[in-house]
Amino acid sequence: MGRLIAWCASVLLLAGAMPAYAEDGYDLWLRYRPLPAGIQARDRAQAAALVYDVDRHDQSIIKAGEEIERALAGMLGAQVPNYSQSVVPGAILLGTADEPRIKALNLPLGSLGSEGYVIRSATIDGKAVTVIAANSGVGVLYGSFALIERLQRGLPIDGLDISAAPKLKLRLLDHWDNLDRTVERGYAGQSIWDWWKLPDFKSPRYTDYARANASIGINGAVLNNVNAKADSLTAPYIVKAAALADVFRPYGIKVYLSARWSAPIELGHLKTADPLDPAVATWWKAKADEIYAAIPDFGGFLVKANSEGQPGPQDYHRSHADGANMLAAAVKPHGGVIMWRAFVYAQENPEDRAKQAYDDFKALDGRFADNVIVQVKNGAIDFQPREPFHPLFGAMPGTPLMMEFQITKEYLGMATHLVYLGPLYEEALQADTWAHGKGSTVAKVIDGSLDHHALTGMAGVANIGSDRDWAGSTFNQANWFVFGRMAWNPDASAKTVAGEWSELTFGPNPQVTSTVVDMMTTSREAVVNYMEPLGLAHMMGTGHHYGPAPWVHELARPEWNPVYYHKADATGIGFDRTKTGSNAVAQYAPHVAAMFADPKTTPERNLLWFHHVGWDYPMASGRTLWEELAAHYTLGVSQVADMHGKWRSIQPLIDPERYAKTDIFLSIQQREAQWWRDACLAYFASVSGRPLPAGEAPPARSLAEYEAVTFPYEPGK
Amino acid sequence: MGRLIAWCASVLLLAGAMPAYAEDGYDLWLRYRPLPAGIQARDRAQAAALVYDVDRHDQSIIKAGEEIERALAGMLGAQVPNYSQSVVPGAILLGTADEPRIKALNLPLGSLGSEGYVIRSATIDGKAVTVIAANSGVGVLYGSFALIERLQRGLPIDGLDISAAPKLKLRLLDHWDNLDRTVERGYAGQSIWDWWKLPDFKSPRYTDYARANASIGINGAVLNNVNAKADSLTAPYIVKAAALADVFRPYGIKVYLSARWSAPIELGHLKTADPLDPAVATWWKAKADEIYAAIPDFGGFLVKANSEGQPGPQDYHRSHADGANMLAAAVKPHGGVIMWRAFVYAQENPEDRAKQAYDDFKALDGRFADNVIVQVKNGAIDFQPREPFHPLFGAMPGTPLMMEFQITKEYLGMATHLVYLGPLYEEALQADTWAHGKGSTVAKVIDGSLDHHALTGMAGVANIGSDRDWAGSTFNQANWFVFGRMAWNPDASAKTVAGEWSELTFGPNPQVTSTVVDMMTTSREAVVNYMEPLGLAHMMGTGHHYGPAPWVHELARPEWNPVYYHKADATGIGFDRTKTGSNAVAQYAPHVAAMFADPKTTPERNLLWFHHVGWDYPMASGRTLWEELAAHYTLGVSQVADMHGKWRSIQPLIDPERYAKTDIFLSIQQREAQWWRDACLAYFASVSGRPLPAGEAPPARSLAEYEAVTFPYEPGK
Repeated sequence: MGRLIAWCASVLLLAGAMPAYAEDGYDLWLRYRPLPAGIQARDRAQAAALVYDVDRHDQSIIKAGEEIERALAGMLGAQVPNYSQSVVPGAILLGTADEPRIKALNLPLGSLGSEGYVIRSATIDGKAVTVIAANSGVGVLYGSFALIERLQRGLPIDGLDISAAPKLKLRLLDHWDNLDRTVERGYAGQSIWDWWKLPDFKSPRYTDYARANASIGINGAVLNNVNAKADSLTAPYIVKAAALADVFRPYGIKVYLSARWSAPIELGHLKTADPLDPAVATWWKAKADEIYAAIPDFGGFLVKANSEGQPGPQDYHRSHADGANMLAAAVKPHGGVIMWRAFVYAQENPEDRAKQAYDDFKALDGRFADNVIVQVKNGAIDFQPREPFHPLFGAMPGTPLMMEFQITKEYLGMATHLVYLGPLYEEALQADTWAHGKGSTVAKVIDGSLDHHALTGMAGVANIGSDRDWAGSTFNQANWFVFGRMAWNPDASAKTVAGEWSELTFGPNPQVTSTVVDMMTTSREAVVNYMEPLGLAHMMGTGHHYGPAPWVHELARPEWNPVYYHKADATGIGFDRTKTGSNAVAQYAPHVAAMFADPKTTPERNLLWFHHVGWDYPMASGRTLWEELAAHYTLGVSQVADMHGKWRSIQPLIDPERYAKTDIFLSIQQREAQWWRDACLAYFASVSGRPLPAGEAPPARSLAEYEAVTFPYEPGK
Repeated sequence: MGRLIAWCASVLLLAGAMPAYAEDGYDLWLRYRPLPAGIQARDRAQAAALVYDVDRHDQSIIKAGEEIERALAGMLGAQVPNYSQSVVPGAILLGTADEPRIKALNLPLGSLGSEGYVIRSATIDGKAVTVIAANSGVGVLYGSFALIERLQRGLPIDGLDISAAPKLKLRLLDHWDNLDRTVERGYAGQSIWDWWKLPDFKSPRYTDYARANASIGINGAVLNNVNAKADSLTAPYIVKAAALADVFRPYGIKVYLSARWSAPIELGHLKTADPLDPAVATWWKAKADEIYAAIPDFGGFLVKANSEGQPGPQDYHRSHADGANMLAAAVKPHGGVIMWRAFVYAQENPEDRAKQAYDDFKALDGRFADNVIVQVKNGAIDFQPREPFHPLFGAMPGTPLMMEFQITKEYLGMATHLVYLGPLYEEALQADTWAHGKGSTVAKVIDGSLDHHALTGMAGVANIGSDRDWAGSTFNQANWFVFGRMAWNPDASAKTVAGEWSELTFGPNPQVTSTVVDMMTTSREAVVNYMEPLGLAHMMGTGHHYGPAPWVHELARPEWNPVYYHKADATGIGFDRTKTGSNAVAQYAPHVAAMFADPKTTPERNLLWFHHVGWDYPMASGRTLWEELAAHYTLGVSQVADMHGKWRSIQPLIDPERYAKTDIFLSIQQREAQWWRDACLAYFASVSGRPLPAGEAPPARSLAEYEAVTFPYEPGK
């Protein structure tokens, strides 16, 4: 006995000396830290063994089993016995619908599709077990992550009867990653794809990327930038993409590629990329065959055509539909899809950039092949802090539309500003298009229910890079997370998801959760206030999109200049998109168009997006527009200070490494919020010829000083 | 008792379930994994407490204490009691020479300078203790790392009487890191300096960088690329550099900057950068004052001038000495130094690029200010797999010269080839210049002993980046390590250091150590053989320096072309540097010059560097040159196969993650070694008009195919 105690003591000494878990953010929301002892004891009885039929060699179920083992080892401190056959009390049984013991339970799997799952507390052979069942191994994997999440959040896992299935078919990350490992608009280091060492070296990070995505239901990755190089379609790069596809496959993640429209010329030495030229179609068909030979479950192509200088079918006087359908025919035999972007931004429409996508695409409604989906950004300009919903939503009933959100914060403070995008996504998804009367939300457009489309999807421009914490900050991880949740369910609540993320990321401490959720749900309105309140947009610095530059007016094309968007002068401010102006409001359904046509019925948050109004325009608060504008800017700065104070209030409850990083980033955000406010108010005071409203603190520097600032080595180029 | 056992058991369960240490390479050679139980028990008695006077607030000693605590916690599983005052049996006592208990020991610290240390097993107040003493806190830190290393390697720490001091004063990493985070010739991800988030966010990685450097005695870092931008000298970037200096200071590491020669024009709006123009000198003096105000212990400037298009004093018809001395005067009042590179490579010397540094610098000997040191690459061309020692070593007795080695493998297979550079460094350092007769080694030139210089140094072009393993591969870490060891002691043995590194990196298992040391000591000769044997050089691909391209002949300047260096034709191969050719041999001391002037006395490894010889030239082996050349190429390939086999033989003794990565990289190296051999032999067979020697396997592809390969997205640009 003495020897046993000595042995115990020596091992305890060792355990105590083990390094603490590194809280460098690498683990994301899959942290699996030890649960409180009481909860461990409770859960251990219900997670006593893991049972699945390994002889079926379902790779997704094997990954599900590995994940559960990893999670239980971390959270319960238990190596879970792994049984391939017999059920014991407290077992977790994984399997598909045809597994005999699962079949016998008659679970409601019929309506859950290929990716849904059931988690059911059941009795098998008189033993209480937890069953995770689905129609596919990937469904079982999703269910396993759902069970793990309950454990992470300290929720009981008895008495469960959970069914879930994704509402959208394509739930994709778009990586704007270049082949030289730079990431366009990436603020988290290099591309995680180390193309140079692929296909030989498959970094363990690729597996962790797949785990993280599968845990939130993401099922596809477009590997390369939409501003694509043809090289990504060459044999060496297909082999590299195939190596990634091999890693991702068990996690239910398909690989997609951005296609360079002119690849038949650049790679195939054809004279044209005209989609109606048979040689072009033949080239793409052969290219698709070549890709599918290497990647049998290749997802398909994403295409940016005739936008920002990219080539496209309009170069040959063909329509976007002509282009998309030609590519669609190439991938159709293999089950692939074409995601054709509606973000078109060409030289021909100087009147109102916001109208261009609708003008180009509306007439093509119903003319796309059935494996084409048109990918539309949430707003008509470009991922601004706030835009009204894109007028194409609801306007193309004959065409499946998928949502394109930006997860990386190109216009929202890059890596360091704390901006939770859930409220932005929710606002866009819950916007009512009135396409078929009240309740015709954007969510119902993209989930296919409004117009009965089977092909549905949501894409998020990834914020992922080689930084240790993946996303450049702890809170940026929440944007990846909420994107996944809303792609799974576009009607998810941003606030609920924020709470889930906080519990998974910082542990289920109620004080932490309520404080973090407060910070997160405030943060998006804060950034709107200190950057571009009341419907303003596109006032950021040229090129890098960092910091305020409302004064820029000298760039070659009108719509490159912030002054094009705010149109501030001595009399007033705002872009008139009513019929006295560009009449962009007419692109919306009549009810919405009428609302936006009148400044009195336009929500004040969108006022200057649709209307040019005088500086003394009376606002609902009783203030003039100028007073209201200044008040919003000042409020934005104080909201950041509030967030910072809230973060400091929970310092004792957060690990030092993650606490310090967020604390420093909030200091940066506070300084930059002040910069935005001061520079914008200095500019608008100058252009309006008005003094600052009474009580508003003067800007710290002169307008000339703000205009003189340059940033030669900004990230994300 | 039952409860105690249950408690033990539950904690053991937890301990067993703790995640294994991630073997992702982040910990470098400071892994601090648990030692075998027997050794732990032995060492615990001698590492029972840590004693130092915290009230002195010596930051370096505090860091030393933290490091010992971290090391003992990891290796011994012991939280070491930390006493600020009283000595107990088994204590480790840290302190400087004036600490009363250390002063009483009369340790031989007088000759050890500001960075040396003593480790002594001693008795204080009748208690057996281990004393780590030095003349400065940094010396104590160095001694602490030395003691930790003994523990890591399983060596006893009783009966110690160790004294050590560095032979060189400046032991520096040169980071060729750009302000946009790209790294010129970097193959390990982005720059670790996240300039954008500095000075606010000081990544924990900066501290770990400093720890690793201090552990091998590196005491300076040039933060930015020698191809410098003036921006790094602007106020915002000085603040950023100061933030790094603050992190590094306790670890004895000074910050240096590469200076852009034309900064007075670009930043100061002067009309000239003429070093003799008083306004230019005044500008630099003010700039130095500005930097020192922010970084009181700033180390000084590194300058690349009049080389590869960089501006310099020769633009104004002034000498390198004029330029260096002007800058030296600016930093002199603050104790700074100027490191002036002798790597000059300008348009004016088409005769023999290898002669240019000597031609430019020899005449300036003795004309440099006393805080200038001239930085000379190990060879006269540019970090090739093998070069004879640089003729400037020994040729400038009146001037301190520092060595510039490359740690990053620009010409040696980039990230993935296993090439241990210790033998390359050793070969250069032990080369005999005969400057003052036999034994006038390069090591004695740079350690100042040959010509009595006090200012001494060695710089290594860093191989460090944002990759998790820092250096792009596990074995690349060894090159950082051996550089540090040889900068501390230029007479260190590459093989001994390889063994030390292996024990620290993979644990002190004799089978692992002997196998790894075998691999490492073979590896440099292997890369010479499969790339550029027998004195060949500079046959790599244009621009990216990746892969074989001996055929390139069409570039604008003669010395940009591989054919300039090998001069192979139907009759023979090699660069005649005797008096019938460029007479570069005359740059060496007479004894050496005579040896290199005659092909019969020239070592065969340098033959084609100095001589153009016929394909049938008889070699010592009895083979013709052509046969010998082919045999070397083939040998190089088989040496890689041997290394791979050795690695596989120790698979059970290496953790899976690091085993797999090196295994895959060796596969890449094997394929690329074959490529080098095949492409070069195909080319030389073609140019010589000879068939391959009997028994040599034919190249896998045609010469035209090798010539057609392109690499559009290579790293390290």
